[in-house]
Amino acid sequence: MHYRITLAYDGTDFEGWQAQPRSTPARTVQGVVEAALAPLCGGQRIPLAAAGRTDAGVHALGQVACFRMAREMAPADLARALNRRLPGDVRVLDAAEVPDSFHARRSATSKLYRYVLDTEPLQLPTRRRYAGHTPHRLDRAVVAELAGLYAGRHDFVSLQSAGGSVKTTERTLSRSDVAWDGTTLVYEVEADGFLRKMVRSLVGGLVAAGRGTTTVEALRRALEGRDRRLWPAPAEARGLTLVRVDYPDAVLR
Amino acid sequence: MHYRITLAYDGTDFEGWQAQPRSTPARTVQGVVEAALAPLCGGQRIPLAAAGRTDAGVHALGQVACFRMAREMAPADLARALNRRLPGDVRVLDAAEVPDSFHARRSATSKLYRYVLDTEPLQLPTRRRYAGHTPHRLDRAVVAELAGLYAGRHDFVSLQSAGGSVKTTERTLSRSDVAWDGTTLVYEVEADGFLRKMVRSLVGGLVAAGRGTTTVEALRRALEGRDRRLWPAPAEARGLTLVRVDYPDAVLR
Repeated sequence: MHYRITLAYDGTDFEGWQAQPRSTPARTVQGVVEAALAPLCGGQRIPLAAAGRTDAGVHALGQVACFRMAREMAPADLARALNRRLPGDVRVLDAAEVPDSFHARRSATSKLYRYVLDTEPLQLPTRRRYAGHTPHRLDRAVVAELAGLYAGRHDFVSLQSAGGSVKTTERTLSRSDVAWDGTTLVYEVEADGFLRKMVRSLVGGLVAAGRGTTTVEALRRALEGRDRRLWPAPAEARGLTLVRVDYPDAVLR
Repeated sequence: MHYRITLAYDGTDFEGWQAQPRSTPARTVQGVVEAALAPLCGGQRIPLAAAGRTDAGVHALGQVACFRMAREMAPADLARALNRRLPGDVRVLDAAEVPDSFHARRSATSKLYRYVLDTEPLQLPTRRRYAGHTPHRLDRAVVAELAGLYAGRHDFVSLQSAGGSVKTTERTLSRSDVAWDGTTLVYEVEADGFLRKMVRSLVGGLVAAGRGTTTVEALRRALEGRDRRLWPAPAEARGLTLVRVDYPDAVLR
């Protein structure tokens, strides 16, 4: 049987969805879910494929993963059985059977990420795990202008973190929206796909331009010039959440 | 010199403001702040008095503490020096000189606590540290009725946790308000003082009545009858935050 599960997790105590090749035994979301799944499959370790391989410290409200197992279970029973075995920082929110052709990453049409950034001089201790922080006041008009410039189809190679190895670095941002909740910036970005650390680099650009260490014009030239040395440093992982993954109805059933 | 500091902390990794007498070496907020203060006083350990002795796991956005030190420092410098030495889960938000007669607890006229309770079947992992959880659907009208009944002056001895040793158990609740944010209950309660675990017991009552394991009438009788065996179990610490402490202007300067 082929199953899809929707996962929420607190990324703080994980070294990401999957371990980097160089890592020594690491606590990963993939590892923890596979370990919870194994007892349901006679102890056999079943590999999971995820929609987005979130980095260390990145959270999820709607990560999607898929796997095949010989045993047939009602999806609700599968979700309950996994939640009984999973640690509290990972929950299965939903489970469903999917057609053979479904793949959590390849079938996805878009993903929505949210970045939360506190901009007060001091960040409250109760905000540290789920929001990034800059003590600088950001120019809201500049931040909005740059977020608008990100929207649409671009070659994002200049934002790509070293180590990325994808065929094409062109992506289409169908949404690139900034909202403010008091002094907290909330950036939502939706695209057909993301390069490694791409959202954090987009936010790094917003912060740098917003505080005036660079300009929207300089970043527009860096984007068009495809020069990755010119892009500001990515924002911290802790402010980032994978909110939702969308699929065409046809691949879900 | 006599100083007042306003503190915010994430209570998750603390055994409360101060250690219980029976505890072996415990990480307490008081201990951590006193340790950060000592190097500013030539290594001397200076005792702190707090407005509210929060329990293990309880958070603060506006705890107030006071202390005397021989050295005179500009309040802003004092706050900065403490924040450099404090761990990330405690921050000094403000510092001020206060008259000799000021006392963080005895001078306080009221304290405001907030309790956040998620009522979805599954609690999201990113909510676990700062919200309690019940998987039960609560009757909102019943919850509102009971919260209204709490308001005003009552003898709260039936809610007092064992081990409390105060002279009087009468308290006046000037505010006892329930709001809903989707399926999350947000309870705010302000009073001239609180007994041990009193807010969590008030919330325990709201949950028990809201899910129907007891009635508002039974709890009204328990309150009036001053029988502590009848009160439902207190809610979990993690959902509770000390939001603010108020003082009359006269004691602040």
